[in-house]
Amino acid sequence: MSDGLKQFMNEQLPNVEQHMYQLVEEINAPASLKEAMLYSLKAGGKRVRPLFVLAVMDHLQAITPAGYTVGAAVEMIHTYSLIHDDLPSMDNDDFRRGKPTNHKVFGDAHATLAGDALNTLPFGILARMENVPAKAKLQLIELLSVTSGAEGMVGGQVLDIEGEKRQLTLPELIQVHENKTGAILRFSIEAGAILADATEAQRNLFIEYAYHIGLAFQIKDDILDIEGTTEELGKTAGKDVASDKSTYPSLLTLEGAKEKLQQHAEKAHACLAQIPSASQYLADLTDYIVYRNK
Amino acid sequence: MSDGLKQFMNEQLPNVEQHMYQLVEEINAPASLKEAMLYSLKAGGKRVRPLFVLAVMDHLQAITPAGYTVGAAVEMIHTYSLIHDDLPSMDNDDFRRGKPTNHKVFGDAHATLAGDALNTLPFGILARMENVPAKAKLQLIELLSVTSGAEGMVGGQVLDIEGEKRQLTLPELIQVHENKTGAILRFSIEAGAILADATEAQRNLFIEYAYHIGLAFQIKDDILDIEGTTEELGKTAGKDVASDKSTYPSLLTLEGAKEKLQQHAEKAHACLAQIPSASQYLADLTDYIVYRNK
Repeated sequence: MSDGLKQFMNEQLPNVEQHMYQLVEEINAPASLKEAMLYSLKAGGKRVRPLFVLAVMDHLQAITPAGYTVGAAVEMIHTYSLIHDDLPSMDNDDFRRGKPTNHKVFGDAHATLAGDALNTLPFGILARMENVPAKAKLQLIELLSVTSGAEGMVGGQVLDIEGEKRQLTLPELIQVHENKTGAILRFSIEAGAILADATEAQRNLFIEYAYHIGLAFQIKDDILDIEGTTEELGKTAGKDVASDKSTYPSLLTLEGAKEKLQQHAEKAHACLAQIPSASQYLADLTDYIVYRNK
Repeated sequence: MSDGLKQFMNEQLPNVEQHMYQLVEEINAPASLKEAMLYSLKAGGKRVRPLFVLAVMDHLQAITPAGYTVGAAVEMIHTYSLIHDDLPSMDNDDFRRGKPTNHKVFGDAHATLAGDALNTLPFGILARMENVPAKAKLQLIELLSVTSGAEGMVGGQVLDIEGEKRQLTLPELIQVHENKTGAILRFSIEAGAILADATEAQRNLFIEYAYHIGLAFQIKDDILDIEGTTEELGKTAGKDVASDKSTYPSLLTLEGAKEKLQQHAEKAHACLAQIPSASQYLADLTDYIVYRNK
């Protein structure tokens, strides 16, 4: 990761995190529920989704506090999906980021409900944002609903579960990831463009960028599952191979997957090159997604 | 139920239901997910929440197609909560309205995800409603987020689960129900007032009305659990007593609960009397909630 991007993250992400914790702390809800929600929100992670919101705004030279709010909203959605994914009825994971999963600490019922609450809360948060035009807020709400719901993340999760039972074709695998992880990344990137009042041409380039970086992100994840260590990743390495899961390396070979990763990285950069910026951080973030080791 | 209300329901509810099914059928999502979503949406129920949206609009002489959309949205939220409530990790119910519960048909993972999708979808639906001012749409979205999330329905579900382990006091029981069932009824009633462009004075009266009818609804449910038959109710009667659950009759005696029900019914009617209307349906619906036998 470039020093510049590291500095950008260190400057910006604490704003998102503090705002996110405060948005949960200030709600009038049972203490046990808030504790379960905050436990998973505070469990860390790379905060890639808020980072994309802010890096896109920065690319257009327009970071505002609304970026922190939208960053917090998308991180809540991502966190709810992890809590539900980890449940015994889903992936049945006991650890996430080196810590016991939500249901291991709070029980299955509370974990289900903490996830539900983190699914619902962001929509209200977006609706009451200050200093954002009503039209932009409605666009963000609709986009979050579509990209995180049946047509996006949740639909991708269904395809993923159903795909575990058989070998997927490459188009099927792409469809799983476009929905499961790609859709929410698209939200983050497009949300940054909406908040920064991008032109329609810029917004379309960002949507194309989001497509490529979303697939690059997932291909890299699949490669790391083979090449990374459990210690580096904070989750069990080699799990995909052990479970005979369809992945880019399993369908394309490891070398083929690396080539595909490179192609998507180049296309992502080509989109960005058409939206010139005084800032380098979004380009650096693109490289980080492609070259990270965890 | 009055003949007038019966006719009103027969005329209006099919509009909500058809619109609701169409809103799910038209989304681009895995067939299995849509099937699981539609299974529970089509499982019937009294459609009390959409009915309140429409009866309030009718009370103010202003039913518009947006009422069907908001009715569909709130019924989706209610349905997601039932799907998750029925899960083995929650109430572990095999039957609902005489039909196998969602997870018994589609499995726990798909039921969890169908619930998640039905939680997310309504917010996008509200955001893209036509012929409703942006300000009203944002009010509806924020209200739905608050009343269905940690501060409302989900919070109430947490209190309910935690309350099962011990005897609740009457204030605690009221708090559970104000949140678990009352909050979403409040959404329906206030949403009808927002859509019908009610004055602030009228809206405050509707909020007070919602408080009383919400508690009346739950007290009546508790009474029916004792006095109703499994056949009439479509669910196992006597379950509360068998599980030693805190209810209005257990805390107040059956006679005391009936008295309390009567008090809330009278107060609800008193609120309505201050919002004169050419229509009788909302008053009839109030009576139906209090005198129903299922």
